[in-house]
Amino acid sequence: MDWQQIFAARNERMKASEIRELLKLLEQPDIISFAGGIPDPDLFPAKAFQEAFSAALTPEMQATALQYSVSEGYGPLRDWIVGEMGRLGVPCTRDNILITSGSQQALDYLGKLMLSAGDTALVGWPTYLGALGAFNAYEPRYDRLDPETNRSAADYAEAAGDGRVKFAYMSVDFANPTGKTLDAAMRERVIDLADELDIAVIEDAAYQSLRYEGEALSPVLAREIVRKGDINACRTIYCGSFSKTLAPGLRVGWVCGAQEVISQLVLLKQAADLHSSTINQMAIATVAQAQFDSHVAKIKTAYRARRDAMLAALQTHMPDGVSWTRPEGGMFIWLELPTHLRSADLLAQSLRSERVAFVPGHAFFADGSGTNTMRLSFSRTDEAVIEEGIARLGRLIAAALEA
Amino acid sequence: MDWQQIFAARNERMKASEIRELLKLLEQPDIISFAGGIPDPDLFPAKAFQEAFSAALTPEMQATALQYSVSEGYGPLRDWIVGEMGRLGVPCTRDNILITSGSQQALDYLGKLMLSAGDTALVGWPTYLGALGAFNAYEPRYDRLDPETNRSAADYAEAAGDGRVKFAYMSVDFANPTGKTLDAAMRERVIDLADELDIAVIEDAAYQSLRYEGEALSPVLAREIVRKGDINACRTIYCGSFSKTLAPGLRVGWVCGAQEVISQLVLLKQAADLHSSTINQMAIATVAQAQFDSHVAKIKTAYRARRDAMLAALQTHMPDGVSWTRPEGGMFIWLELPTHLRSADLLAQSLRSERVAFVPGHAFFADGSGTNTMRLSFSRTDEAVIEEGIARLGRLIAAALEA
Repeated sequence: MDWQQIFAARNERMKASEIRELLKLLEQPDIISFAGGIPDPDLFPAKAFQEAFSAALTPEMQATALQYSVSEGYGPLRDWIVGEMGRLGVPCTRDNILITSGSQQALDYLGKLMLSAGDTALVGWPTYLGALGAFNAYEPRYDRLDPETNRSAADYAEAAGDGRVKFAYMSVDFANPTGKTLDAAMRERVIDLADELDIAVIEDAAYQSLRYEGEALSPVLAREIVRKGDINACRTIYCGSFSKTLAPGLRVGWVCGAQEVISQLVLLKQAADLHSSTINQMAIATVAQAQFDSHVAKIKTAYRARRDAMLAALQTHMPDGVSWTRPEGGMFIWLELPTHLRSADLLAQSLRSERVAFVPGHAFFADGSGTNTMRLSFSRTDEAVIEEGIARLGRLIAAALEA
Repeated sequence: MDWQQIFAARNERMKASEIRELLKLLEQPDIISFAGGIPDPDLFPAKAFQEAFSAALTPEMQATALQYSVSEGYGPLRDWIVGEMGRLGVPCTRDNILITSGSQQALDYLGKLMLSAGDTALVGWPTYLGALGAFNAYEPRYDRLDPETNRSAADYAEAAGDGRVKFAYMSVDFANPTGKTLDAAMRERVIDLADELDIAVIEDAAYQSLRYEGEALSPVLAREIVRKGDINACRTIYCGSFSKTLAPGLRVGWVCGAQEVISQLVLLKQAADLHSSTINQMAIATVAQAQFDSHVAKIKTAYRARRDAMLAALQTHMPDGVSWTRPEGGMFIWLELPTHLRSADLLAQSLRSERVAFVPGHAFFADGSGTNTMRLSFSRTDEAVIEEGIARLGRLIAAALEA
């Protein structure tokens, strides 16, 4: 039987990522992994979740917790998010919030909502690998979003050819993979550009709560509300997640945006998976209400120390010609090597000799460029191991430069 | 801002269902609802889930339960399903199983996997409303799958026009909405037809475990394996769910099929939501291992009594000219009224005067026909209330017939 005859054309864009396949092999305990961008499980509020799940399963609550529920999401959780968005400068109501199964699902639904085959998505060069994966199913073209250049809206529109530019996607705080934060002026410029192009803005805020230094910058959505007076007049769609703050294994995230967008997303979600897990939404609501701020403060202390350790180790061990970002939060540092070095080759070498893992940077570029870049995550490794891993990596890169 | 300019064309197919909107209004306690096809929450194994979640959140297990996990699904749960599929006559391995967020998500992913715009999906007339909703996002045509006719494969192929027939979708046991079961000869005929057309078969087995009388019929997938020797040579894709047996609120279902299909679905899932909730998969595995059979036996006893009560009440209270199915399991009975009656109008009347809810049948027809049909669910109402509700409904229909 020839399944390729039956699979839809979109599957040609949905190939196994060599990186993800490689990372599956990294479970060996002697590997020092800076690869996955995942939270440290020792920091999960497991006891609080144990109590929250237990409370959801009492005779009074179980009929709600285990039953089907509405596609929009669990009311008390949406209310908590309304409060949190308000604190971020985004006044809104429950009708502006959809609960999704992690913010990855929000990206899938936003692609489904807006992209027809041949439409253009503006994305960073590099950008979040999982965003490209989600959007690919809807067969877009990609163009490079770079608000720091003076490229005109007309030029973006013209480059879209037969399709239409539909949205600009970006992670604004301590972005995956670069760790960079978009400054206030650039946030405003993105709104200008989106207004001129009449497109949506997808603001991926997965790391937003994890700031270790410096002043918080208000979200793009908050800035647009200042200009336009009401979230329902805004084109920015904010994607939040509990995966980096409370726990990813429950798969709970949210979308916050204009009611017209949310109500159409609700229809897409209803058709695609009915709703996100009822009991998980209840447990997240309980834990968030009780200790979101104190828990986030605790994990920030731990991650900040790891970031500092990695920055210090890079300073000590990296040879001349290597540069890196200095993130104010998040989980990632981005390295640029001299252009003749290929980080994918270095990874293969590293796994053989140094036993240090990272993600080669080209996977984050829609055009596969950036072969001399790499992403390092500091979130899951303690300081002493970070020092050792970066020392080994520095040795490997120095040897490659001398070869 | 004109969002309609930005939304992709597929959204024109994703409209709010008048039925679902109506059903949202039915939460009033004085309504007798035969509308939703949902389990009775009093039958949920809440205590077992409480223990299972608690066990997943001990210090030894929490780092797994709360963390990201692989897109394929939790190994021990896939292993349990392998055993269950084996008992159903489907020998397979872990690589033939993908865990999804309910079988609704399986339908979405299968549409995404196979349907390009203009391709044809063969479906029952009527069929599961949620399958039409899931597939609509991929802009198919629908054609009527009716294995009881002698319609030729060539005729199906020709009717597909510029597109291609991609799959036949059907619920074979106590189908939603009709309650009907496809007999053995018809199951074999569907395989013949699929072989001739070179298409996939989607076997929706959401209600498969809920048989109250008669001999179980082996799944279409099991029959195809008998013919072809190996699941990996089969075109049937089986969709299972824990929503009707253990609990829907956890959103756990599965797909069982050829490895080539499963591995592509894994890529689609990775891009769409990374994976289903880790902790929920663990809890389902624990409860299924401990008490799947005994729990299913318990709920079957309860639902069987309700089916019997509804059939008896229909016999007593329905006027001449109304006919209905006699399901051997599941949750639904399907009524056909004289053709001049419109069940949607009856629902509006019923909610005003009799306070009984049901689902008008036209929602289950891809072409909106079947306006004289209705779906009644007996799963959530106890026997005395069923008798009262059917008495009221019989009165309403009798009055409409006399009018």
